[in-house]
This record gives sequence, C-alpha cells and structure tokens, in this order.
Amino acid sequence: MHASKVSRRLKEATAPEVCEYIYQPRLAGFAEGFGYLGDVNKAHIVMLADSGLIRQEHAAALAKGVLDMETVGPNAVELDPNREDAYFNYEAHLMEQVGHDIGGRLHTGRSRNDILATIDRLRGRDVLLELIDTLISVRRTALENAGRYAEVVMPGYTHLQPAQPITYGFYLAGVAQALERDSRRLTTTLESMNQSPLGSAAFAGTPFAIDRARSAELLGFDGYLDNTLDAIASRDFILESMSHLSLLAVFWSRVAQDYFTWTTHEFSLVEFPDSVAGTSSIMPQKKNPVVLEYLKGRSGHIVGLLMGASMTIKGTNFTHSGDANREGTRGFWEAAEESVRCLKLLELVLRTAAPKAELTLRRAAEDFSTATALADLMVRDADLSFREAHHIVGAVVRQAMDAGQHADQITGEMIDAAAQDQIGHPLNLDPQRIRECLDPVENVKARNSAGGPGISSLSATLEAANARLTLDAGQNQVRHQRLASAKARLQNATQALAR
Amino acid sequence: MHASKVSRRLKEATAPEVCEYIYQPRLAGFAEGFGYLGDVNKAHIVMLADSGLIRQEHAAALAKGVLDMETVGPNAVELDPNREDAYFNYEAHLMEQVGHDIGGRLHTGRSRNDILATIDRLRGRDVLLELIDTLISVRRTALENAGRYAEVVMPGYTHLQPAQPITYGFYLAGVAQALERDSRRLTTTLESMNQSPLGSAAFAGTPFAIDRARSAELLGFDGYLDNTLDAIASRDFILESMSHLSLLAVFWSRVAQDYFTWTTHEFSLVEFPDSVAGTSSIMPQKKNPVVLEYLKGRSGHIVGLLMGASMTIKGTNFTHSGDANREGTRGFWEAAEESVRCLKLLELVLRTAAPKAELTLRRAAEDFSTATALADLMVRDADLSFREAHHIVGAVVRQAMDAGQHADQITGEMIDAAAQDQIGHPLNLDPQRIRECLDPVENVKARNSAGGPGISSLSATLEAANARLTLDAGQNQVRHQRLASAKARLQNATQALAR
Amino acid sequence: MHASKVSRRLKEATAPEVCEYIYQPRLAGFAEGFGYLGDVNKAHIVMLADSGLIRQEHAAALAKGVLDMETVGPNAVELDPNREDAYFNYEAHLMEQVGHDIGGRLHTGRSRNDILATIDRLRGRDVLLELIDTLISVRRTALENAGRYAEVVMPGYTHLQPAQPITYGFYLAGVAQALERDSRRLTTTLESMNQSPLGSAAFAGTPFAIDRARSAELLGFDGYLDNTLDAIASRDFILESMSHLSLLAVFWSRVAQDYFTWTTHEFSLVEFPDSVAGTSSIMPQKKNPVVLEYLKGRSGHIVGLLMGASMTIKGTNFTHSGDANREGTRGFWEAAEESVRCLKLLELVLRTAAPKAELTLRRAAEDFSTATALADLMVRDADLSFREAHHIVGAVVRQAMDAGQHADQITGEMIDAAAQDQIGHPLNLDPQRIRECLDPVENVKARNSAGGPGISSLSATLEAANARLTLDAGQNQVRHQRLASAKARLQNATQALAR
Amino acid sequence: MHASKVSRRLKEATAPEVCEYIYQPRLAGFAEGFGYLGDVNKAHIVMLADSGLIRQEHAAALAKGVLDMETVGPNAVELDPNREDAYFNYEAHLMEQVGHDIGGRLHTGRSRNDILATIDRLRGRDVLLELIDTLISVRRTALENAGRYAEVVMPGYTHLQPAQPITYGFYLAGVAQALERDSRRLTTTLESMNQSPLGSAAFAGTPFAIDRARSAELLGFDGYLDNTLDAIASRDFILESMSHLSLLAVFWSRVAQDYFTWTTHEFSLVEFPDSVAGTSSIMPQKKNPVVLEYLKGRSGHIVGLLMGASMTIKGTNFTHSGDANREGTRGFWEAAEESVRCLKLLELVLRTAAPKAELTLRRAAEDFSTATALADLMVRDADLSFREAHHIVGAVVRQAMDAGQHADQITGEMIDAAAQDQIGHPLNLDPQRIRECLDPVENVKARNSAGGPGISSLSATLEAANARLTLDAGQNQVRHQRLASAKARLQNATQALAR
Repeated sequence: MHASKVSRRLKEATAPEVCEYIYQPRLAGFAEGFGYLGDVNKAHIVMLADSGLIRQEHAAALAKGVLDMETVGPNAVELDPNREDAYFNYEAHLMEQVGHDIGGRLHTGRSRNDILATIDRLRGRDVLLELIDTLISVRRTALENAGRYAEVVMPGYTHLQPAQPITYGFYLAGVAQALERDSRRLTTTLESMNQSPLGSAAFAGTPFAIDRARSAELLGFDGYLDNTLDAIASRDFILESMSHLSLLAVFWSRVAQDYFTWTTHEFSLVEFPDSVAGTSSIMPQKKNPVVLEYLKGRSGHIVGLLMGASMTIKGTNFTHSGDANREGTRGFWEAAEESVRCLKLLELVLRTAAPKAELTLRRAAEDFSTATALADLMVRDADLSFREAHHIVGAVVRQAMDAGQHADQITGEMIDAAAQDQIGHPLNLDPQRIRECLDPVENVKARNSAGGPGISSLSATLEAANARLTLDAGQNQVRHQRLASAKARLQNATQALAR
Repeated sequence: MHASKVSRRLKEATAPEVCEYIYQPRLAGFAEGFGYLGDVNKAHIVMLADSGLIRQEHAAALAKGVLDMETVGPNAVELDPNREDAYFNYEAHLMEQVGHDIGGRLHTGRSRNDILATIDRLRGRDVLLELIDTLISVRRTALENAGRYAEVVMPGYTHLQPAQPITYGFYLAGVAQALERDSRRLTTTLESMNQSPLGSAAFAGTPFAIDRARSAELLGFDGYLDNTLDAIASRDFILESMSHLSLLAVFWSRVAQDYFTWTTHEFSLVEFPDSVAGTSSIMPQKKNPVVLEYLKGRSGHIVGLLMGASMTIKGTNFTHSGDANREGTRGFWEAAEESVRCLKLLELVLRTAAPKAELTLRRAAEDFSTATALADLMVRDADLSFREAHHIVGAVVRQAMDAGQHADQITGEMIDAAAQDQIGHPLNLDPQRIRECLDPVENVKARNSAGGPGISSLSATLEAANARLTLDAGQNQVRHQRLASAKARLQNATQALAR
Repeated sequence: MHASKVSRRLKEATAPEVCEYIYQPRLAGFAEGFGYLGDVNKAHIVMLADSGLIRQEHAAALAKGVLDMETVGPNAVELDPNREDAYFNYEAHLMEQVGHDIGGRLHTGRSRNDILATIDRLRGRDVLLELIDTLISVRRTALENAGRYAEVVMPGYTHLQPAQPITYGFYLAGVAQALERDSRRLTTTLESMNQSPLGSAAFAGTPFAIDRARSAELLGFDGYLDNTLDAIASRDFILESMSHLSLLAVFWSRVAQDYFTWTTHEFSLVEFPDSVAGTSSIMPQKKNPVVLEYLKGRSGHIVGLLMGASMTIKGTNFTHSGDANREGTRGFWEAAEESVRCLKLLELVLRTAAPKAELTLRRAAEDFSTATALADLMVRDADLSFREAHHIVGAVVRQAMDAGQHADQITGEMIDAAAQDQIGHPLNLDPQRIRECLDPVENVKARNSAGGPGISSLSATLEAANARLTLDAGQNQVRHQRLASAKARLQNATQALAR
Repeated sequence: MHASKVSRRLKEATAPEVCEYIYQPRLAGFAEGFGYLGDVNKAHIVMLADSGLIRQEHAAALAKGVLDMETVGPNAVELDPNREDAYFNYEAHLMEQVGHDIGGRLHTGRSRNDILATIDRLRGRDVLLELIDTLISVRRTALENAGRYAEVVMPGYTHLQPAQPITYGFYLAGVAQALERDSRRLTTTLESMNQSPLGSAAFAGTPFAIDRARSAELLGFDGYLDNTLDAIASRDFILESMSHLSLLAVFWSRVAQDYFTWTTHEFSLVEFPDSVAGTSSIMPQKKNPVVLEYLKGRSGHIVGLLMGASMTIKGTNFTHSGDANREGTRGFWEAAEESVRCLKLLELVLRTAAPKAELTLRRAAEDFSTATALADLMVRDADLSFREAHHIVGAVVRQAMDAGQHADQITGEMIDAAAQDQIGHPLNLDPQRIRECLDPVENVKARNSAGGPGISSLSATLEAANARLTLDAGQNQVRHQRLASAKARLQNATQALAR
C-alpha cells in the first residue's frame, strides 16, 4: 500500500498524470488557503470541546497543534501531491505534530466537503469585501471629479452622434450612479452568502451532536445553511458573484470605450497624462491608450470565466463533485483578482483624465447638438406641437449642413423660412431666445429637470450620491470591524483551550 | 421626401434591407408592447397636464385619443416599417385620430429613449413577478413532497457514488432551499429595478419643468432614476435578471440530471408516469426522459442568451444605442418566457416523480453507503480517533467487496480482524450497535444534526422553509395588488382628464 | 390507451405541459423539414427495393405515397402534438394513405435517430451553401469598391490613433481578405460534413442487409459516416458551423465598429446615404447608424447561440439524446438565418458607404500619421539607425504639437534642431524629400512592399484576390449543380419505382 | 524624461498601476517567447542583408548579437516593466551589446506589430503540432482497445436508457472516429495559418524594398499574408483554434460523462484501477472518479476562454489594438496547455478502463435492449410491417416488465398472445430464432450493416480507421521535419552572416 494514500480502500499509488495535472496544481494555493483552514479547524475544535464531543485534553492538544502550525506558517508543511489536496496535507502535518491518535480526532463530525464549502465562503467574503472597498473608492473619485467638472460643457452623444450638450461632471455622475448599483449587487451577495455550511459533513449531516450555530458564530457567519445537501452541493454565491463581476466588467468596458473614443485625435475631448499612455516602436507620433485597451480587453475574459463556470456546473448532479465544487469554481478567484486590478485602473482613468474644456465647448456649439432646444423653444414660445417643431428644426439643420454652416450660425430668418415652408407662417421667435438655445452653456443650464445636467439639478444629484456613498463606506467599515472582532474572539477561545 | 419618414433631416426612403431585416421584426412585438406604451402615454399626459405644461383641452384630447386607441386595440394600427418602430407607428396613428397639432404635443419633454427604457422596466417588472410566482409554486410542490417522502430512505450520492443514506424528502428539501435563493435573487432585482427612467428624455433631461416623481408614481414605480444619462444608457436590470435566470437554469439542469440518472434502468430509484415520457420509433422497450432532456437542453440556451447580451452591450459606449438597448436586450424576453416554461416542467417532474421505496431502501442497505456510521461508532464507543476508525472501516469494506458481500453482511468479527491488523487490538463493539449503523433506516434516523436527514431535523427544516414560503408568497401578492392599484389610479386620472 | 401514442409501451396520454411546451413547438418546423423528410424516405425506399429488403409492390406503393404527399404538400398533414414530432406525424399520414401494413414497412432497417441526423445534414448543407454564396457576394462588393477607391487616401489607425496614411481601397482589400478565410472555413465544413448517417438506425446498425452507400449517393452525399454510434451521437458539424459563424460575426462587428467610428461627426471620413440611416424622435439633427448598430448588436447573439449549444451538448452522454440532438442544436438554424441577414446588411454598408475624399486627405496631412516616413527617410538618406531616427522624429512631433502645428508644417530646420539635440549634429535632409514624406499621397505611394497600400502593391493584391474569388464562386456553382443532379436522379428513381 | 521610456513623444514615467497590472504581467512570458523573438530577428536580419537594406557589417554585428543573446539565454536580460513589453526589453539589451547605432538598425522596415503577429503564429504552430500529436496518441489508444474489446458485449444506450446491445470495442471505435474529426479540424487550421505576417510593419507596409517571401521562407512559413492591414489586425487563427479546442473539450466531456455513469455502483459496467481514483476524508467506502471530474470540469473553462476572447475581439476596431491582439488572445495559450493535459488524462482513462465483461453481458441479456431484434425478426420471418412488429413487441415488453421478468424470459407464447391481441393471429416464430434475438451475443453479431457493431463490420471499421491514423501520424511527422529543416537553415544563414 502506498504510504501517503489516505484511504485504506485504494491499493495502488496514484498515477503520475493524476498527480501532475490534478493534485499538484491544487496545492499551488496551499499557502493562500492555509489561514482559512486554520480558522475552520479552530472553530471546529472549540465547538467540539464546548459540546463535549472530544475530551478536554484532546481539544487542548489539537488547539495547540493548530496554533503552532499557524506560528510556523504554511511553508513548514511539506506538500505531497499523493495526499490529493490541501486538507489531507494539513492533517498529515498536524498528526505528525500531535500524534496520530489525537490528530485523528479533529475530523470528528465533519468532512472535507463542508470544510471546502466553508473555506470558499470565508475567502469569498474577504474577496467581496475588498471589491466593495475598491468600488467605493472608484465611486468617490468619480463623484469628486463630477463636482470639479460640473460646469465643463461638452457634447453629449447617443449612437455616438452629437445629441445634446452636457457637462463632463454630468457624465461622471452617471458613471458613479451605475457603479453604485454594482456596489449594491455585491453587497447583497456578501450579506446573503455569510452563512456557514460547517457541520454539514459530507452532505448528509452527522450523528454527533454538533452545534452548528456555535461554529458559525466563531467564524463570523450570520447563521448557518440549513439543509446540508444544499449547503454542500451549492456554490451559487460564487456564480452570483461572478455574474455581478461580469456586469461590472461590461460596464467598465463601456466607460473605457467612451474614453477610447474621446481621446482619439478626431474627438480630442479629453486627454490623459503621458504616464498612462503607451508608445509605438515604429510610429514616433503615437500615444496609445494602453490602459483603456486593458480595461476593454480583460472585460470579456471575466465574462468568459462566468460562462465556463456555469457550463461546468450545469453538467453536474446536484451534489458534491469535483467538477461542481473544485474545477468549476476556480475562475471566481481569478475574476475577482482581475476585477480589483481593473477597478484600480478605472480609478486611475477617472482621476487623471482631463477634459479639454475650450475645445469641448466649441464642439458643442458647432455640432448641432443644440437643435433640440430650438424645437423645445418653438413649443414654448410659438405654441407649436413638438412634432411640428421637430420637423421645422430638422429642415433648418439640413439646410445649414448643406451650406457648411455650424449650428451657432442658425438665424431667425432661416427658421422662419422653414416654418413658412412647413406650416405656412413664420414663427418670429425672439432672437435672444434663439441665441440662448444655440449657446451650449445656456442650453445645458436650462435642463434642470430632475437628474439633468443643469447646474442645480446636477448639484442635487451629487449631494444625494455623496450621501449614499458615505453611508455605503460606513457600512463596509462596520463589516470589516465585525469580522475582525469575530476573528479575535476565535483566537482567544482557541488559545484559552490550548492552555 | 418619403411620406412616412418621421424626420425631415433624412431625404431618402429607407433601404429595403433595412425595412425587412431591422424595422419589420421590431414591429412583430407591437401588440405585446401596446399596453405598456399606452400606460406611459397616459402617465405622461396626466403629468404634463398637472404640471401645466400643456393646455387642459390639449391634454383632454390626447387622453381621449389614447383611451380610444386602447379600446380598439393594437390591431387597429396599420403598421408601416418605414416608421422604424412601435413608437412612431403609435404616434402616427394617434395623430390621425386627434389631429397633428394636438398629437404632436404628446412628445413634449420626452423622447423615444426614455419611453423605451420605461417600457422595458414595466414589462420586466411583470416578467419578474410571473417568474417569482412560478418559482413559489415549484417551491411549494417541492416542500409538499418533501413532507410526503420524509421517511423514504434512499442512497445519497457524492461524485455519483453511494455516499450515505438519505431520504427522498431530504433531497427535495435541498431543492426547495436552493430555489429559495433564486426567488430571493429575482425579488431583489424586482425591487431595485422599480425606478422610473421617464423624464430623462433623450438622456440629458429637458428644459420643461416636468414632474418625474409624479409620472413615476402614476406608473407604480417606487421612485425615479436620478442621473438621466445612466437612466437611459443602462439596462443592467436586464443583464442582472438574465444572470439570475442563468443561475436558475444551471440549477434546474442539475436537478434534471439527478432524475435523468435515477430513472435509468440501472438506478431505478424513481419512476415517472407514462404521461411524462417519450417513445422510440424503433426500440419497443423504450420510455425516454423527454421532459428531463428538455430541461437540460434549454438550460444552456438561457445562459447563451446572457452571454450574447453581455457581449453585445460590452462593445457599446455608455450611452443610448441600438446595440445596447434594442438588439442587445432582446434575449431577455425569450429567456424569461423559456424559464417560465421550464419551471412549469420542473414542477411537473417534482410533482409526478415517485421513489420506488422498497428498492431505494434495499440499495441503501447493500451499497456500503452506511460505512461512515461505522467509523463514527468506533469514535464514540471505542474512543478511536476518526482517522483510525476511517482506516479500519476502509479495510473492512475492501474485504467485503472482494468477497462479494453487501454492506449489511459486515460483522463484528470482520471489524475486529481489521482492527487487530491496523491498531493491534479488537474493538469488541456491541453487535446491536453495529447492526443499527448498517441498517439504513436507523442510520438516517441518527443523523439529526441541524439541517440533516434525520426525522426531527428534517421536520424542523421543512417547518421553517414552509414558513418562509408563506411569507414570500404573501409578499408577492402584495406586489401584485400594489401594481393593480397604481394601474387603476392611472386609468382614473386619464379618464378624468379625458372628460 | 391514447389513440395517437405511437408506442404500446406507454399507457397514458402525454401530459398537457409536455405537449404544449415540448412537442407543439417542435412541430412548428414541420413544413420546413417536410421536403427533407420526403427525400430521406425516397432514398430509403429506393435502397430497400434495390437491396431486395421489401417487395416490389410494397416499394411501389410507398414510393407513390411519398410522391403523393409531396404533391399535396405539408399542409395536408393534420399535426397532432401527441405524436411527439414531425416524423411520427408524417408516418401516420402516410399510413392513412397507403394502409398500415404497407406504411409500416417504410421503417425497416432505420430509426428516427438516423433520419433526424440525416435531415440535419441535408438542411445544414443547404444552409452552408447559401452562406457561402452570400459571403462571395459580400467579397465581390468589397473588392469592387477596393478597386474604385484604390487611390482615395485616408488616415490609417492603430489603437484608433492616426498611425499611417492608407487608402480606402486598401482597407476594403483587407476586409475582403479576412472574409475569404470565413469562406474557406465554411467551405471546409461543408465538404467534410457531406457524409450520410442514414442506415445507422438507432445508433447500433441493423441486421437488415441495407446498402448505406446507395442511400448516401441518392441523397447527394459524398459517402457515409462509418461507425454508427458516432454517426448518431455527433452533431459536431453544427457546432463547427456555429463556431465559424461566430468568427464571422466577430469580424463583421469589427468592420461595423470602424464605420460606426468613421461616420461620427468628429471623424466624418465616410458617409452613408440617408436610406441606411435612422432618425431621432426628439433630436432633429440626428442621423443614426441603425444598420451598423444592428450588425454590432446581432454579433453577440450569434456567439451566445454557440455558447448555449456547446454548454448543452457538453452535459450529455456520447449517444443520442434530446438535449444533444434536438434542443442543443436548435440555435444553429437561427444563427445561420441571422448571419445571412447580417451579411446582406454588411454588403449594403460596403456598397453604399462613400469616403469623403477631400476631408480624408486633409486629415491624413495634418494628423502626424506621416511621421514614420520621416524616420524611414533618415534611415535611408542620413544613415541613421531606425531607433535614433524614431527618437528624433518623436521630439519633432512633440514640438510641433505643442506649438499647435500640423504635420505638414514640419520643416528641415525643426528636424535639424532636434537632431542636434539628440545626436549632436544636423541631418541636412533634402527639403523636397521631406515634403514627399509629409504629403500623404506620396507617403502612401511609397509603401509598395508586398500587400501594402501603394498603388502597384494594392493592384497586385486585388488581382490575386479577384482571381481567388472567381475560383470560389465557380466551385460553389459546381456544388449547387451536383446537388441538383442528385435530387433529379432521386426523383427519377422514385418515380420509376412508383410506376 | 524617464530613462527607459522608448519614445521621446511621452514625457512622464509610466504610472505605477500601469507597470504593475499591465506591463509586469506581460513580461512573465519573456523566457517563453525569447526563442521565437530571436528567430524573427534572425530572419529579418538575413532578409535585410540579402536585400541590401542594411550594410553587411551592420548585419554581421546584429546577427552576432542575436546569436550571443541566444547563447546566454533569456535570464541574462534584465527586465524593466517601464519598457512596456518583451520586444523593447530585448532590443534594449541588444543595443547595450552591439551599440545603439547598430542595434537601432534592426527595426528597419518592421514594427512591433508584425513581430507580435509573427510570434503568435510561430508559437501557435508549435502548439497545434503538439495538440495533433497528442490527439493521434489518444486515437491510437482508443483504436487499440477497440480491437482488444471488440467482442465484449455490453448494453448500448440512447437517452441513457438501454437501447440495443453493442460491444465496448464498438463504443471505442466511435470515440476514435469523433476524435479523428478533431484532428482534421486542428490540421486544417495549422495548414491555413502557416502564413507570415512579417513585413507588414505597423499594418501599412513600408517604403523599404523588403522581401517578404524570403523572411517567410526562413521562418518555415508556407507563404505570407498579402494585405498587410488584415495581416496585423486579424488573429482569427487563434479564435479558430480555440473553437476547435472547445469542440474537442465538449466531446471529451461527453466521453468522461459516459465513464462517470458507467463506473457508478449501479451501472458497474467498467472499472478503473485504484491509481486513477480519489478517496474520501469521511466515507471509507468511496472511490471517487477524480480524473473524470477533472475532464468534465475543465471542459467548460476552455469554452469560456473562447467566449472571453470572442467577446473582447468583437468590441474592437478592425486594426491593431491591445484588446484585440494582446489581452483578447491570451486565453488561447492557456486553453491549449489545458487541452494537452486533458487529452493525456483522457488517454489514461481509455487505456486503464476495463469493462466488467461478465456483468455487461448479463445486463444486456436482461435489460430489454434486445427487443428491437425481435421486431426485426417479425418483419423478416412473419412478413409483418415494422410498425406492427414494433407494437407487438412493445406489448410483450410491457407484460414482461409488469411480471418482473427479464428480456431473456420472453417466449413464443407471449409473443403469440400479443400478436393475437393486436393483429388477430399468432406469429408462430421459430423458437430458436427468438432465442438468438434475445441472446445479446447473437443479437450484436447479426448487426453487420456498414459501421455497425457486428464482428465483421467493426473489424472493417477498425482497419480503415487504423489506416487513416497511420497516415495522419506520418503527415504530422513530415510537418515536424520540415520545421526542423527550416530552423536549421535559418541558423546556418545567421551564423554565416555573423562570421
């Protein structure tokens, strides 16, 4: 029998392909998961001792062993891929330290399955917390610059065609508002996932009178997952988190696409410092949008990871299996790490991009994006129906474009000629009012309907958004503190036992 | 100029390919969206009138026109693809009814963009409500049968290998628990999406002093989306809903896979009535799992629709465009409709599948899935460490298998021989206690840790799950009632105006 | 027993949900598949008769029955969803026509499984032929306009930043070259998939001495799939085709993105006639790129359909099942139909888009995309290393930009100053040579390396591409003719039998 | 100015986030790409020298420098992320070695863009070659065992229900036949992709009179990509390869699913040695299918990588950009590496799995999968139509099942009773012929239609498949030799120049 085989059920050594391609890669994350495994062990030992399921001296020895392993760290454990995974390697080391009889008692009333499920949630919780922190930071930057650039007028686009003048601050307020929903999504998942699977054992509970509420509380969970089959078989919090990251990635890619467009030579609405640009090996004039391309380029990958995970898990039975709970979920950790990176780069973009205010204003004056205001004016001052006004302005714009004129060259005479043609009489609009419509600054200023780009409406938007940001940031701080407290309590309880 | 072109900006008729491939298909959903468009128009008219933005007689005529169109229905509108989409066709018909001057006033202070965004949310709200209702019904069926079959013992599997005996009711309780999270997800989205984009106009607000809170309230929204760019550019509630449907589809596919396995000739744990099976054209003995294959077969498509939508939207700017807000989101409606169908089929499966109780019990007795209990027994009665016990039982199982024996033929002598071999002394376990471990009924009964399959723990699980189901069902009823009230108020306000 | 149940194995009527959600939708494609099913029946009857497996008079009656059904068409068949699918409905109708005893002999030595597999290939063959025809047409349009616009100079971009001047014809030649690979991919699949699964029966062959080569030849196949399990279980030609359509969709989306960018107000390099543009309901100046957005918007969906199909099939056993061979493959037909539509729209785009030649030339002169030529000049005329030349030009460009100058304002003095600064001496380049570098027309003209945009190299590229297009078009014609001949032979053989 | 910035165009140091998240990770693959970059440099230098575009002494110095770097290896290059990528780091090191003036001449008439494109193809070529080799090896194992187990009768399944008896060898022949198409797909791509992009420079050619055919030939390419824009902008060979790997992964997952099912306790048709199984930490009886779960579990990820890549590239312009050509294509290398691993594990599965021949035979005798032969017998011996025969057998099967009988207990009397009931008269079949139908061995033996499981037909299938395998293996050997020869010639030419 092979020495390191854990089970006496199997008689042969593991095939080398299995070690090399499956078990070895699993152990690559040993150090990273070491702390989580240690915490799960502490909570289980304390619970076993509290519940009288192991004798006090055994519990003390186990507690001491786990604390000792924590002190020397993961590198002290000699990893053997024949032992399949992190858990068996940890256990084997612990048994060497505390003896086989005592070490073997640690696994009373539990299984690798509930340990794995618990660690996934502990680690997932930390990952989501960091993501929410990072998102809050991006939102803060967006809102700060939204305030700074609240009056920088620029063309606004739909279908990437000039539509109506807006301000750069108004755009950033939109970005912040969208990111707030990403925060909300991740927070919802964080709160609903904070339930302990520990004590589900293999998937079907245990005859030992364990106290699941106790181990849950020791690990900072808000409660435990009731039905133990579901507790072991499901990792939907991972797919749910990956879905949220996919939505987030889709969004940041859209924002990156905006900057990618706006920093072209032709648009030139915004510029970046040289520190966030790349070069060309051949074209000396180039300043390439390397960060934006990275943001766009990693977005698809993150959605692809979700796709892969969904596809794998879809093919499994509703139970514990390697494809559902190991291979299928690996992409989450990569997606989360990449998302943090991309959010920091997105923040760099939002922080360093600066609108070329003079040019953006001139564009907005010339590109006919002020035309809607002219139609609105006809509705108010000439009592036209909007549809008629729209037709008249359409004809005027067409005529101006054909003549190579800019929007701000439209006159009352042109309008009256078109009106005459379309509805049979001139409109005789106040020239001053026409000029105000065609002046982008006045044009924007007038749009103060709720949530609009006008100064007062944008100011109200920002005030409310900042208040919600402060609230969100505060709540995430509270979450950090709660977990820190739970961790401290767990450590104290373990140390008390070890004494 | 082409008669039906809405804008005077464009001089030529639309190319036939554009009509045939793009505009015509858009109009296919005219009837379906007609009611939503009517409601948006009503709310906008009432708001314009309340805010004094149009004259009372104009408002009355518009209100009457919209109510008249509602009376005769969508088929009275002659659809012209040259008009691009549903909105322009509706408007053109209304103008014919109430005159161009009055009809043209309807579009004051708004745009197709905010109308489209509003309709997507109204329709999405109804879709989610129906999905939640359907889910509640599936959960109810699962819980009912969980109660009915609470004591039907069957093998439980991990890695599709016999693991530990469970009951069929315990399995169904797990299914219900997982579906509850799907309910929770869809409910969260339903609640967060119920915000009005109306009044955002094209994306940049309007100079008219519209009252967004008023039109939101008239449409049964809980409030309005603040920043208007985000309100128009974002459809993340659609991607969010599709993500949830993907998770749901992944889950129902796993459950279908379980039944697909269990109804094989070899497993034969469960059987379906003939009414849910298909036949073979050539093999007379076949009874094919057509419903299960349908459930498995549509699951991937629903995830594919999410991927397609994500991919399309990812490539757009953060603004209104056809790819982001029309083509990219079409898959949602299909995904939702297919999901309702599949949930009803899933309920059919859960309702009609019946465990073959005698056989499931025999299997659980023979397939060694009781072995863990033996190890647990050694821990409790012989003070062995779990790991040592595990090794001894592994050797016993190996020996029994090699001898062609079943699990329930294991004896104290076999155990003692293995113990002698491994740890140097016999265990002398009580034979009655051994028999209890190896009897699947006693084996399950003993596992009463929280959430486990034992009678008392399962009973507690079901009681709590049923209580939450009742709560969820009640809350969704309240949602229905609120929307019905809002609809009635809107109708009254419109009729009052029309008088 | 339910009358319409095909099998005597099942005793109950099908559940209404199964009929409504599964069988009914399957029958929606009855008319579309009717001709293929008829052809398969003809080939099978002729083969059975030729091989002496049914008596001549039975064969004659069956042949006549099938031909009669062809004459009256699919609408003469009253469809009953209780019969599960198209095949059983067809068979039931035939039996009514020719009697149960004779009609029942048609299914000798075959199964629904091989019929379904055969129809999928017959239909897939037609679908690929049409796609290749359509692609050839798009390539032709691209190459024609590449010739027409071979000397229209415009800025070329990398990272969407002006990089080097090209011509619009050079761009279109690139598009045609990429599409040629899509043609090649689809053609490869068409040729490799043209193998008959007929005669595989359920999946495991038949004891009847059927002649698979004969029925294959009658259906215009190039041969038959050998191992019958694989012949029934595999639809990889569908996934392979969908993969190719995904690549194609990704490509057309990139091209659409180019036009989407180039037709912005800011780029304005290209314009479309009004006939391919959409309007705005609110902004009178708008001319929206509705076709481009459609192309971008459907691309993701086509990839999503592949993902859905892959995901579904991945979860199946390697055998015949409803999820693998019915539900999982449905997306292909939609993807193919949508691709044909999009290719026609892409052709519309390539045919109607026109470069604004004066503006594109001016831009290329001003945007510093000529700078690389200046570095190349230094290498040739001043014997500088390219890297040094690159540095000097970089400094000159920087200086010109800072001074608000255009590229064509760069002078020998500026160059010498920078050279002095960087390498310690002036370069004294020939001013005439400098001007040629900075003149976009001369700049492009000089780049005649193989495949480049220079006149002679582009001309060579187009000549070769046109020759390959002619070849491809001819070969697809031959394919059409071969299938038409096979169809005629099959009809003749069937009619001869029926007499 | 920052010292390591390559371009004089940019004035500031790169932001730390950009270095850490973008440039640093790019350099992680420096060693792996070092050899390819060296080869590209050699080919370019030789071509430049041959074409007289650089002086002989410069060429010699460059050749020597590149050969020297090759000798000391990649670790001699001190990597600086501020230099953006591998190319600039290589160039910087070379310049230090040979001086800036000479080193700077290497980049004449080329760009990073065509270098990157060329390296992707060189590396992709090696990757595909290895994949094809590995596939050939898997096919060989499948065919060898197909021969070994050609007469091991087992149940065959459709819809995972017993359908008709087959042999395990017949199954493996089907697997080999499917994998042959995967080989064909990868080979097609390998052959079509072996075209050189070198000399396309940035994307728009070069004014230097380079000889693209020469550098292509030096690098073992079959020719060069003509239009240079397409040559730089397109990486469709990567998406095409990833598509093929996705299809392959979908297939291996289906095969793994078969073994996953067959090795359950309930099916028990096949067994693995302990060396390819995993254990349980809690359930002593478990032998878990860890390799099969790995195969199933990585399949989805590989499709997800394709999805991610497609999604990213779809969002780009048709030109060179970081998202299209760097970030978007990264997944390919991971997919290829993972696929090689999985193919080796698949081969391990096919090599070590052994059918439990006694049990598989007994199952096939009892599970009614022989019933179709009975219907076929009635067609031949009693001149019944197949449909009538099918109905009679259906009734007999139903009756036997209800009576708890196995298939091999069906008698002539039972058949006659059912016939009497259905068609009014008995069939009086020869009892010996009935027994032959119901005996799985005879049953399989009889199905000798082309490609079927009968001994002679399977033998023909295997002979043909082995012949094609030998051919494929030989052709791939030729490909290896050709590339080795090209590599030797390139080395010789470079060394000759360096002297």
